[in-house]
Amino acid sequence: MVFCATPPVDGNLARYYVHDADFLFKLPSHVSLEEGAILEPLSVGVHACKRGGVQFGSTVFISGAGPIGLVSLLAAKAFGATKVAITDLVESRLEVAKKLGADYTILLKRGESEESLLNRIREALGDLATVSLDCSGVEQSVRIAIQATRSGGTAVLVGLGGKENLSLPLSGTLVREVDIRGVFRYVNDYQTSLDLIATGKINVKPLITHNYTMEDTVKAFETSKTGAGNAIKVLIHANPDWKP
Amino acid sequence: MVFCATPPVDGNLARYYVHDADFLFKLPSHVSLEEGAILEPLSVGVHACKRGGVQFGSTVFISGAGPIGLVSLLAAKAFGATKVAITDLVESRLEVAKKLGADYTILLKRGESEESLLNRIREALGDLATVSLDCSGVEQSVRIAIQATRSGGTAVLVGLGGKENLSLPLSGTLVREVDIRGVFRYVNDYQTSLDLIATGKINVKPLITHNYTMEDTVKAFETSKTGAGNAIKVLIHANPDWKP
Amino acid sequence: MVFCATPPVDGNLARYYVHDADFLFKLPSHVSLEEGAILEPLSVGVHACKRGGVQFGSTVFISGAGPIGLVSLLAAKAFGATKVAITDLVESRLEVAKKLGADYTILLKRGESEESLLNRIREALGDLATVSLDCSGVEQSVRIAIQATRSGGTAVLVGLGGKENLSLPLSGTLVREVDIRGVFRYVNDYQTSLDLIATGKINVKPLITHNYTMEDTVKAFETSKTGAGNAIKVLIHANPDWKP
Amino acid sequence: MVFCATPPVDGNLARYYVHDADFLFKLPSHVSLEEGAILEPLSVGVHACKRGGVQFGSTVFISGAGPIGLVSLLAAKAFGATKVAITDLVESRLEVAKKLGADYTILLKRGESEESLLNRIREALGDLATVSLDCSGVEQSVRIAIQATRSGGTAVLVGLGGKENLSLPLSGTLVREVDIRGVFRYVNDYQTSLDLIATGKINVKPLITHNYTMEDTVKAFETSKTGAGNAIKVLIHANPDWKP
Repeated sequence: MVFCATPPVDGNLARYYVHDADFLFKLPSHVSLEEGAILEPLSVGVHACKRGGVQFGSTVFISGAGPIGLVSLLAAKAFGATKVAITDLVESRLEVAKKLGADYTILLKRGESEESLLNRIREALGDLATVSLDCSGVEQSVRIAIQATRSGGTAVLVGLGGKENLSLPLSGTLVREVDIRGVFRYVNDYQTSLDLIATGKINVKPLITHNYTMEDTVKAFETSKTGAGNAIKVLIHANPDWKP
Repeated sequence: MVFCATPPVDGNLARYYVHDADFLFKLPSHVSLEEGAILEPLSVGVHACKRGGVQFGSTVFISGAGPIGLVSLLAAKAFGATKVAITDLVESRLEVAKKLGADYTILLKRGESEESLLNRIREALGDLATVSLDCSGVEQSVRIAIQATRSGGTAVLVGLGGKENLSLPLSGTLVREVDIRGVFRYVNDYQTSLDLIATGKINVKPLITHNYTMEDTVKAFETSKTGAGNAIKVLIHANPDWKP
Repeated sequence: MVFCATPPVDGNLARYYVHDADFLFKLPSHVSLEEGAILEPLSVGVHACKRGGVQFGSTVFISGAGPIGLVSLLAAKAFGATKVAITDLVESRLEVAKKLGADYTILLKRGESEESLLNRIREALGDLATVSLDCSGVEQSVRIAIQATRSGGTAVLVGLGGKENLSLPLSGTLVREVDIRGVFRYVNDYQTSLDLIATGKINVKPLITHNYTMEDTVKAFETSKTGAGNAIKVLIHANPDWKP
Repeated sequence: MVFCATPPVDGNLARYYVHDADFLFKLPSHVSLEEGAILEPLSVGVHACKRGGVQFGSTVFISGAGPIGLVSLLAAKAFGATKVAITDLVESRLEVAKKLGADYTILLKRGESEESLLNRIREALGDLATVSLDCSGVEQSVRIAIQATRSGGTAVLVGLGGKENLSLPLSGTLVREVDIRGVFRYVNDYQTSLDLIATGKINVKPLITHNYTMEDTVKAFETSKTGAGNAIKVLIHANPDWKP
């Protein structure tokens, strides 16, 4: 597989890029290039929700309100989730989540026991979640996501971190027939993402916090890396006419 | 839930038991009471295979050739699995598995690396398994079952042991979209089990290694507990006319 | 089966009705009794959409904008259908459909050829529908619903009329792997319907066009039967305190 | 789509044919070219069974014991159907069906009422079928297949004849939530068919009733067309070394 966005594949940071038309999705005239740029991360959220079977009536718990958590939140609401609760350690991220449609935001407290946090999730949703999405990749968070899932429900682990082995409380959750599913990016999800944006079902613009010209590419990467200025998604504009 | 077979529910070890007819499955005249007694453990294997989506064309890896591993093997073959490989530490168990239809038996070697064992499984099946069933509940075994599953496949953890937390190699497997599913006994599986036996699709008689009268109940439990005489399933006959 | 709303089961038109609590759905305090009364017809639409697999991204064609067509429209939009086109012979019904969220309304013309009508549907949706719901039960309409479904899609025939045999253009549609599914009222759909109303996802109030006291029951039935005053749903209030 | 077997695509009746390797299935050394030739029709039966969801425990009714009915029978049994009943007007075809594993064969009687035939099917299977496969394409037969399907089951119409409109008893069957599905040849089924043959699960050899050299191609087509000598599948051998 060649994935045109990550090492070792170079050459995407260019003003013009030639690609086979068969694999492209044409943006309708009312969808901006900025919105189009969000199709990629949004598709991760769409795929996670499809893998979790999120549909009307689902109650969803999302662990982590970073970019992946937020696009998953958008997709979950658009797919018909009746209640979404989302956690994070950073208050400002939860505020963005609230704006994007989160029904309940839960600020994580350092040192809180698993039992106490699970109680707060249960209290918010009225019960455990039918679908949980871990969007943090941290072992502690994965443990919560699995336990926060209702019997017969599904826990989707969206982005696992570098840790090779995870220590998980499986004996108590698998016996409740909670399914655990991983994801690999996305597949056949771009059209869904485009539909979500083009029909106005979701508004991805709040996700775009910073914009740079191509000449300022290095600054863009620095902003993204440090998360300065509450950066969520940082755009580099290939269009030479674009002005800040 | 009241489960009439385990503590704290007493009273099943009786010659006669009154039960609501609505919840009973009538044995056809050509199915013996002994075969009927196997419906319960067989249903665990049937449920595991249903949870794993075993169907014609599946290639199945089973970890552990104890009673649960063996009934899962029977169900997997009956459901149409084209290849089943099964492991165990005990040679005699693998011999029974062979008789019951295992295509490949793999004797575990103490101290063997995960990589080496995975290679042996892959060699037997020609590739990783589309469905893996861990029937041992041991962490080491669960780790192998997950890793022995093909991308997009399913690993079913049938019986998890007492260990609350398991350390699992999830980052490498979930990114391949291997699903992990637990099971809780069975549900709506008795009719399938009965059909398997009544149609002659499977022969459960080799699973019954020991028989006792009700008067010898204590001996029966001892045999089952120690596994003496290569015990697999040990029957206690409620029928007073039964003779060894 | 005993269905407490149709002959030969009498006794529902009463101020008080005693029912097993296990089978009841408690209305939250912010959901009115009037909205609660719509749960029954709404569940027909919910069930039809579930049977058709309506989800985010579905494009839906609905044949007939009577009460069943309208509740199906509400459910389809709530389930995430990106485009819904609906037909009827009566302009005023299509206006209600428009208010309830129909993206395209198509007024049927007497004597129009099937080909011409199919072209109008295709033009509205941009393609054939992924899911079609016939809510008229008329042979002519069922024929259109089946043909208006995309290859690999599903046509749900919600309410079939009294005609025992239907003459359908199956050779051209089944070869495109269009599935045809019937429905029998609903099952396990009340909770979904209640969630749709309680979360504010849908507004069923426009469906309630007439209200009567229990003393005026006969008038209520006459209104419902004749459809006078563009009647959609006609309520009889069991609550003696209710005033028009 | 280019389908290399039917008009207007010429050129397959040749000793040698060059094809992209990516789309070929390699026959294992123990599978003969004759068996390989049956992969094509067998895949129709495999696809029909997949569309119908045939699995262990299914009870299957097949309408018509011609080549398509027979390969569907083979696939149904291999997929785990516990009971298969098959009908035909010709006794000799039913005898072949019996040899291939049909549990019940039902000889059609001209002039028999639908009710009487349905009673015979119900008597054979003990109940209506969970899956029905119409392999005749005749309206009368399609009507029976639909009505012979249990509530909640699936009727697959495998080969619809030339008749554009079919008059079907849908009001009585769709209200029982019987699904009706069509098929278009097959897709992703060749590997399953090859597995069925290569694992010895099914024996397709009885389907091959006649063999011809390429020089006798015209005779082969005549045999196939007239069905002389109880012809089922008629092979033309491209291999010049083949001798009758």
